[in-house]
Amino acid sequence: MDNGNDVLVREVGLRDGLQMVSTFVPTEAKLAWIRAELAAGVGEIEVTSFVPPKLIPQFADAEQVAVEAMKLPGLTVMTLAPNLRGAERGFALGVHKVDYVVSVSRTHNLKNVRREREASLEDFKRIVQARDAAGLKARTQLAAGLSTALGCSYEGRIEVDEVRQCAAFLAEAGADEIMVADTVGYADPKQVREVFRAVLAETGDIPVAAHFHDTRGTGLANVSAALDCGIRRFDASLGGLGGCPYAPGASGNIVMEDLCFMLDSMGLRTGVDLGRLLEVRRIPAEHLGESTLTGALARAGLPRHYRTAAERAAAVH
Amino acid sequence: MDNGNDVLVREVGLRDGLQMVSTFVPTEAKLAWIRAELAAGVGEIEVTSFVPPKLIPQFADAEQVAVEAMKLPGLTVMTLAPNLRGAERGFALGVHKVDYVVSVSRTHNLKNVRREREASLEDFKRIVQARDAAGLKARTQLAAGLSTALGCSYEGRIEVDEVRQCAAFLAEAGADEIMVADTVGYADPKQVREVFRAVLAETGDIPVAAHFHDTRGTGLANVSAALDCGIRRFDASLGGLGGCPYAPGASGNIVMEDLCFMLDSMGLRTGVDLGRLLEVRRIPAEHLGESTLTGALARAGLPRHYRTAAERAAAVH
Repeated sequence: MDNGNDVLVREVGLRDGLQMVSTFVPTEAKLAWIRAELAAGVGEIEVTSFVPPKLIPQFADAEQVAVEAMKLPGLTVMTLAPNLRGAERGFALGVHKVDYVVSVSRTHNLKNVRREREASLEDFKRIVQARDAAGLKARTQLAAGLSTALGCSYEGRIEVDEVRQCAAFLAEAGADEIMVADTVGYADPKQVREVFRAVLAETGDIPVAAHFHDTRGTGLANVSAALDCGIRRFDASLGGLGGCPYAPGASGNIVMEDLCFMLDSMGLRTGVDLGRLLEVRRIPAEHLGESTLTGALARAGLPRHYRTAAERAAAVH
Repeated sequence: MDNGNDVLVREVGLRDGLQMVSTFVPTEAKLAWIRAELAAGVGEIEVTSFVPPKLIPQFADAEQVAVEAMKLPGLTVMTLAPNLRGAERGFALGVHKVDYVVSVSRTHNLKNVRREREASLEDFKRIVQARDAAGLKARTQLAAGLSTALGCSYEGRIEVDEVRQCAAFLAEAGADEIMVADTVGYADPKQVREVFRAVLAETGDIPVAAHFHDTRGTGLANVSAALDCGIRRFDASLGGLGGCPYAPGASGNIVMEDLCFMLDSMGLRTGVDLGRLLEVRRIPAEHLGESTLTGALARAGLPRHYRTAAERAAAVH
């Protein structure tokens, strides 16, 4: 488990955000976004998705984006794999991290990938084997995501024990990281504490990340609750890019800028320069329009006289 | 200190929201809003402000709004008093609660009411005396607010001990309730815990309320942190109506609908019907335009299969 004052913030907007957007963002703009956000201090980015381009044309340039991103020093490149085939596309490029997702909700898993949840869990074992057989065990981490872990549009509330069981399976199967996702933005802080504590009891030393959506305004409250449990890895998207397929017009992932502001304000170190991060917004805004981006910090600006966590720490020493 | 599963949510949009709005909202619309929100289950509303109408023309109908609101069975009517004169206007009508605010930031207090902070604190004693002399001790509660308690646009961070001292003064002076306000939306959950714990150490049995703004997206995270400290009273405004004079375009108070959703989702009882509450938005929207209102729940709707805290409790018993 991660601990202490260092927090990993991971940009997932190029995957979870862009998959909701019908406008194709040119490859060069995606790469400009990746470069600029890395320069602002975001060291890990989910750069694309290895879904079939027929399903989501936005990711027709997936290989190209991943290859170029891999050239950037200091960046950890993650790619989504909906299945073994998608994972193999990541392995072929030697990406740093492959993100494979199973729905805790059996109904959602069936609707999403047309497989039983247990079959999807078993597939993770095959992905681990394929990674190891390719000689990539030391190079490519496997992050296993549990989607709909805090609620499902089909099933409503999800039993904590179901999440615990899935987490235990993935940990046992060799996940290098477990991600717990509130895919449809149902979670509240009390539930977050219950679910993450149950997951952490099964995952030992494997890092656990939180992936929250801000669909109903509780995103950062859920981050705070996860921090209380010791979670130090969070997914977010610049400008909250994205949305919710089950709630048209609703917000998407938690907003990276607001997340980093809250963490920094709490004295936690993200390594992100908030001013530079805000400037990155112009890249997706240029292609998708300003109105596709949300974010409170971008509207309000930093507090006057704001001193970053690093500045405050330096003043003390 | 309040405890347990019951939470008081107080609508302050008719004061803290409307004071930021230049369009005069007709008296009858204000009353329709108050009636509808009471019917949705919000039992306490700050209905107006007894500031001089020359300063804020929006409140030219303050007496009329307060008098009509007082006729509504079950409603606790609160009015803002910037000074003794404003408190006396409330006393003359026998309102249930008068809200008097002092800035913890000395600079902000000087700029806001042109008085030293200590003079403003001393005035609270005069307000208590005036209330008691009018024979209203059993009828009209005095709620003392500490604004800029979590940050100030002039001074930046505010020392926790300054907040503690002000709270101790107001408690000693006879406050029936202490309200701690993040006037400019600087707070983070860690700071909220520090400040509220310091305040609670001074306030004994006096209820303490939290008044958060969502200027930088941390509003509900701060609510969650305050809940952890045992706080069970929260100010909010319908649709987040309002803003921040120091951050043009930024959000105002935390959004009542999102607050009630989060609390209900956590199993806390607010007495509010979420569906009816959402319908109240059309009243301010009709006069101020839909775009003046924000709110995640209003965009996303309730989760499918959502069961309220009351429904879940009933299913258990």
